[in-house]
Amino acid sequence: MRERDLIDHILSLLPPPPSGILKGIGDDTALLAVQEGRDLLVTTDSQREGIHFRWDWMTPEEVGYRLVVVNASDVYSKGGRPFSAFVTLGLPGGTSSSLVERLYHGIISGCQEFGAYLSGGDISRTTGGVDLSMTLLGMVKKDSFISRDGLSHGDRIYSVGHPGLARAGFLALAGENDSDDFKEAIARFKRPRTFPMFPDWVEKHPFIKASMDSSDGLGQALSAMGRGSGVSIVLDSNPDLAYLSKVAKNLSIAPKVLAMEGGEDYDLILAIPENRAVEFEKEAGELLDDPSRGSLIYWGRADSAGQAGAIMADGCDANDDWGFDHVGD
Amino acid sequence: MRERDLIDHILSLLPPPPSGILKGIGDDTALLAVQEGRDLLVTTDSQREGIHFRWDWMTPEEVGYRLVVVNASDVYSKGGRPFSAFVTLGLPGGTSSSLVERLYHGIISGCQEFGAYLSGGDISRTTGGVDLSMTLLGMVKKDSFISRDGLSHGDRIYSVGHPGLARAGFLALAGENDSDDFKEAIARFKRPRTFPMFPDWVEKHPFIKASMDSSDGLGQALSAMGRGSGVSIVLDSNPDLAYLSKVAKNLSIAPKVLAMEGGEDYDLILAIPENRAVEFEKEAGELLDDPSRGSLIYWGRADSAGQAGAIMADGCDANDDWGFDHVGD
Repeated sequence: MRERDLIDHILSLLPPPPSGILKGIGDDTALLAVQEGRDLLVTTDSQREGIHFRWDWMTPEEVGYRLVVVNASDVYSKGGRPFSAFVTLGLPGGTSSSLVERLYHGIISGCQEFGAYLSGGDISRTTGGVDLSMTLLGMVKKDSFISRDGLSHGDRIYSVGHPGLARAGFLALAGENDSDDFKEAIARFKRPRTFPMFPDWVEKHPFIKASMDSSDGLGQALSAMGRGSGVSIVLDSNPDLAYLSKVAKNLSIAPKVLAMEGGEDYDLILAIPENRAVEFEKEAGELLDDPSRGSLIYWGRADSAGQAGAIMADGCDANDDWGFDHVGD
Repeated sequence: MRERDLIDHILSLLPPPPSGILKGIGDDTALLAVQEGRDLLVTTDSQREGIHFRWDWMTPEEVGYRLVVVNASDVYSKGGRPFSAFVTLGLPGGTSSSLVERLYHGIISGCQEFGAYLSGGDISRTTGGVDLSMTLLGMVKKDSFISRDGLSHGDRIYSVGHPGLARAGFLALAGENDSDDFKEAIARFKRPRTFPMFPDWVEKHPFIKASMDSSDGLGQALSAMGRGSGVSIVLDSNPDLAYLSKVAKNLSIAPKVLAMEGGEDYDLILAIPENRAVEFEKEAGELLDDPSRGSLIYWGRADSAGQAGAIMADGCDANDDWGFDHVGD
């Protein structure tokens, strides 16, 4: 069963949400009404040894920091700001206290960078490798939450970041490819970037129709946005993927495939009304203050024809199943 | 390193909490200020295959339900009510979709029973066994949160429930002891009880000085309350543990040791001012509407003499390290 089908099935078991749950399962974060002027965002994401990281690739500080980034990215992509973090740790017998301490150094450093306060958690033994989960609470101004499913016909879809770059870094590590071509890609895999300035930016430019992060790959993100919105996505024939050319050539993978199948990127995927695209292209530079944050890439447009969630490339049906799927068969 | 020392160390790495974090690490739940009249409670707890449960002992529905109880128990013990739940699932490769579905049936059934709405989560692969974590959000009336650390000299300490009974069930399962003596104990281990009526009760009887649940054993709970409050605990010489007599005899463990070393009980441990003890003993019956919820047991009193957190039995120093410790050496 694919993760998507499993989640659809879980949804079918649930009663309708009570009034305080504005959004439950199905977006990057849940949205809960707890206050007059602001709503609560909640997201949860894991980092597991042997699945998301390996100790011969990353330090404990990097693993701890990354746990925070992957959660903060969800909160930022909805227009919110992190404020309180909870960590669940699973430790195999014999784990050294110095490893645990170094994990927490990374976690606390990430929490401080993104304005979240480590407020609780749980530690227990596990029979597998080290695993970490975080539940991150954030706040968003009333009516400022940006969902995945706000696309309509004609909307332009952009990414802000470097889709596929972290995936190239992962493939280089997995293939023990030590070419200098992968230096930046490996750094991106180990220490992903996120967009803490996005909530401020959105308040100044309130025309974003939909957004999410690309943590499971651009293809899966586009497909999820399309499905949620009841539109298909028609890809542009020639996105500018110059930043992938060296690594894609070295890996013998087409840059577009690398970007679409990506994952672990934590880029922003944004939908903009057609008549605001020029303005957006001019203003988005503020999100890319530092060249290492990536670039702005136009990917295509939403189309009310075609199957919801399908990705159409160059007029043909493309694979609508790009990106990572965690459950398997 | 013991879990307690590890948590103390993590606390030493943290900056002081910002104003919205009323309570962070160190109690059964965190307490966050998000609303005028009510505060937010957050707790997180895990159930791991091979650590907290075994598939030859429990059904997936039981495991899912138990995940909810162990979290709801923390919220209830603080005087709060659950409202929104997030589940993180780790699945080994090849996990069947029917197992996952049955876990969610148990989770959703528990959520419905305790008034929480399943609002999000995360599913990923794991290299170990199946593991589940829940982060549960609850609400508590402003100034109604009952902390662990409110004990003062002379306060009377009671448990409401059946401390040690679940532990006896666990030991019977682990020892493959199929004596009829263990029927109730095994049922309690598999399907722990909690106290959803406690928040209502507290509003009617606002004299509880401190409370927590006994999830890591009564000994560890008493010690944690004492440490947090700067008092020692002087045990009564003769708590009424008749409900443990058969199982304790069968296991050749003293009933008091079974109760103190317990764990997986989810009983309430309450501190009452000396001058309200008679009233409390009369009123606590409302919490025990159903005999299977257990009984009221008087354990002893808080004493400002002696080392904070020490448990003194019959005038002698008892083991202050009772209960489960998850980290190990």
